[in-house]
Amino acid sequence: MQVWKDYQDQHKDRFLQELLDLLRIPSVSADSQYTQDTLRCAESVKLRLQEAGAEHVEVCPTAGHAIVYGDKIIDPALPTVLVYGHYDVQPADPLELWNSGPFDPVIKDGKIWARGSADDKGQFYMHVKAFETMVKTNTLPCNIKFMIEGEEEVGSANLGIFLKENKERLKADVVLISDTSMLSLENPSLDTGLRGLSYMEVTVTGPNRDLHSGVYGGAVANPATILCKMIASLHDENNHVTIPGFYDQVQQLTQEERTALNSAPFDEAAYKKDLGLDALWGEKGYTTIERTGIRPTLEVNGIWGGYTGEGSKTVLPSKASAKISMRLVPDQDWIAISDLFKAHFEKIAPAGVKVSVTRHHGGSPYVTPIDHIAFKAASQAIQSTFGKAPIPVRGGGSIPIVALFEKELGLKTILMGFGLDSDNLHSPNEKYGLENFYKGIETIPYFHQYFAELQKK
Amino acid sequence: MQVWKDYQDQHKDRFLQELLDLLRIPSVSADSQYTQDTLRCAESVKLRLQEAGAEHVEVCPTAGHAIVYGDKIIDPALPTVLVYGHYDVQPADPLELWNSGPFDPVIKDGKIWARGSADDKGQFYMHVKAFETMVKTNTLPCNIKFMIEGEEEVGSANLGIFLKENKERLKADVVLISDTSMLSLENPSLDTGLRGLSYMEVTVTGPNRDLHSGVYGGAVANPATILCKMIASLHDENNHVTIPGFYDQVQQLTQEERTALNSAPFDEAAYKKDLGLDALWGEKGYTTIERTGIRPTLEVNGIWGGYTGEGSKTVLPSKASAKISMRLVPDQDWIAISDLFKAHFEKIAPAGVKVSVTRHHGGSPYVTPIDHIAFKAASQAIQSTFGKAPIPVRGGGSIPIVALFEKELGLKTILMGFGLDSDNLHSPNEKYGLENFYKGIETIPYFHQYFAELQKK
Repeated sequence: MQVWKDYQDQHKDRFLQELLDLLRIPSVSADSQYTQDTLRCAESVKLRLQEAGAEHVEVCPTAGHAIVYGDKIIDPALPTVLVYGHYDVQPADPLELWNSGPFDPVIKDGKIWARGSADDKGQFYMHVKAFETMVKTNTLPCNIKFMIEGEEEVGSANLGIFLKENKERLKADVVLISDTSMLSLENPSLDTGLRGLSYMEVTVTGPNRDLHSGVYGGAVANPATILCKMIASLHDENNHVTIPGFYDQVQQLTQEERTALNSAPFDEAAYKKDLGLDALWGEKGYTTIERTGIRPTLEVNGIWGGYTGEGSKTVLPSKASAKISMRLVPDQDWIAISDLFKAHFEKIAPAGVKVSVTRHHGGSPYVTPIDHIAFKAASQAIQSTFGKAPIPVRGGGSIPIVALFEKELGLKTILMGFGLDSDNLHSPNEKYGLENFYKGIETIPYFHQYFAELQKK
Repeated sequence: MQVWKDYQDQHKDRFLQELLDLLRIPSVSADSQYTQDTLRCAESVKLRLQEAGAEHVEVCPTAGHAIVYGDKIIDPALPTVLVYGHYDVQPADPLELWNSGPFDPVIKDGKIWARGSADDKGQFYMHVKAFETMVKTNTLPCNIKFMIEGEEEVGSANLGIFLKENKERLKADVVLISDTSMLSLENPSLDTGLRGLSYMEVTVTGPNRDLHSGVYGGAVANPATILCKMIASLHDENNHVTIPGFYDQVQQLTQEERTALNSAPFDEAAYKKDLGLDALWGEKGYTTIERTGIRPTLEVNGIWGGYTGEGSKTVLPSKASAKISMRLVPDQDWIAISDLFKAHFEKIAPAGVKVSVTRHHGGSPYVTPIDHIAFKAASQAIQSTFGKAPIPVRGGGSIPIVALFEKELGLKTILMGFGLDSDNLHSPNEKYGLENFYKGIETIPYFHQYFAELQKK
């Protein structure tokens, strides 16, 4: 609608400045040294929601980081959309690889460079500004509720409790989230599913102290070597995960589904060039699109042990550790997979070492109901602003709480992401395109309008 | 001799206090932040040598850390012993595992607890005090030269140059070093050889940046996983090193030699208990004594990559690295082995990653000439003060420069160590027994006396 476009054109600079202010707050949920900043970020989200026209806005404390709630109920008879987002961000290290400060946002080449610009501050804030647009132009077509949390990057441990305790307050018809990506602005796409996650940490302990590698080398099991052997054994020569039962619950897609999935535009040469790789890798028998969309994976996220400082130290370390996470697909259950991993990893530990396995967090996979009217509304909204229907794709990432919404609130979730895979999520130099930001703000009101209309029918 | 014993009893407290002062200086050669402390340590060694009666004492600068030289030439016609030691120490981390400050020496349970107490400040200082004993009691039986360096723990990169440039000044009949261990004070032993060393660092690089493990997981080679697979492949199921040619130059001992070697007292139960292990590990077909003495080994000294901080980060790292060192035995050449390792590691790298291999330092193995009169002198000296002949053993550690002495100065080296394997060398809570310290000071003058006598014959 022209009235929306006019309002947004008029206020676009302010919209951006407000986002930059949000990006300047280092709300790193994984690191306790940022606890105060994370709370400060929640307070600032609260303020922005109030300014945009939300009511009942509240910073709700949890056992961990707070959840910001706010809503605008114009008519209980109208449909209600629950908008979810998260104001917390991933740690910024390795700092030395950033071209500018992770929390000192810079606009360059038409992009916003900062931690959280795409994941997820830049994306959830589009909803706040789209909401403002509808409120200030008196065109809000439905009720809207906001739930912006601060623990998404650490597994949303306290969100489940919040959902349980606030079922009434969170009553809605659908959940809308912008925390994923599109193929490109030229080829807009819409997620039809997300992978689940199981994040584990393992420690292999050998001798009760670091030893001199000359005096003891060759006589005792080296925990670093053993950890490497154990990790190496988790994939076979075809890069299948070797954990017994790992694939048992994996949904096999029909040839038709796989063909449809692979019809999405994918330029392997450009993909490799962007990553600086001479070859890709992955599970035998599947395409890159399938490997990142419909197949479960196991990745080492971090590994450490022994002397890692400057120069050399001839030590035989007492222990070595690794952070290992698995991406899951329907119908894998993340708790069951976590248990399978633990049992297997403990089982393959050789004599001479002790192994401890702990579970960090996780979530089960999710498949969007593409026949849901909200999915149609999202599809039409994108059609209206991008001029073409979105391509349905399976996202590789995980938003563990999506499965939770279904379980606790009985709500389906629509994943209308406006980011790009190249946004360096969780990496140095995270970015978000200015055009993606504004395009999102432009598209979101159409979603609400179409959803309200379709709901009426 | 009684005169020695009397002098030592009279000054034993001062001997200890002087050592503690030396241990308070954090002369960590591997870490550039300690460069000034390392120089300060050299200056203090110079002062102690002068006080003990040495002449021509000088702190000789090198491209790295300085070498302290001093001598006492009583008669050019008499034999000359070149005493080698090192005042630099290993890094102290992990600091949290120390029961007391690494550079804040504590006397407890009859032991000196501090970094460098056994390796090698406590041991080379025995020579300074033994020298003082002979000088002050006018009983010095031969000429003595001291060369105490500051780069032993980082590969003695500049010692070779120093030897080349000081051949005349370093002229001697034998090199004497106390930088190894004995089986025990009850079972004194004498090293008949040392393993060589090749210390390498490897880095595996995958994508040009850290990636989101959900968006890219399963589609690109994970450098941490690949590094683990590569390291895992370096040992086969019998724990033999798989690098082609690795064993080609290894001297096979005769069954008699192996039997003699294995006749040394070894209590496997006590060994495991001390290390807190339920099982030992090593190359199939060899005993623990052989695995640490006459067989080459390959150990991971450190490994790191990806997110190693608090909590979780779902990153697919851009690179992963490891420090890997190999202990070598006669006749393996450390340069040749380093080249074999590099060639092999680069060869086994799969498509999708790049590998870089760099050489830190190393040295070739050494076998003591047990028919050398200096070996007899050392054996008799130990017999005189311990009351029993030392058991000949092969040491597992490495003192790379020993081979250098033979090459540059044409000198054989005697390794008369007074430490214990349980001294936690290179580990937290390094210690050195007070009795070992004093026993060493008591024994060393006998070495010089017997050596001078045997040399005359």
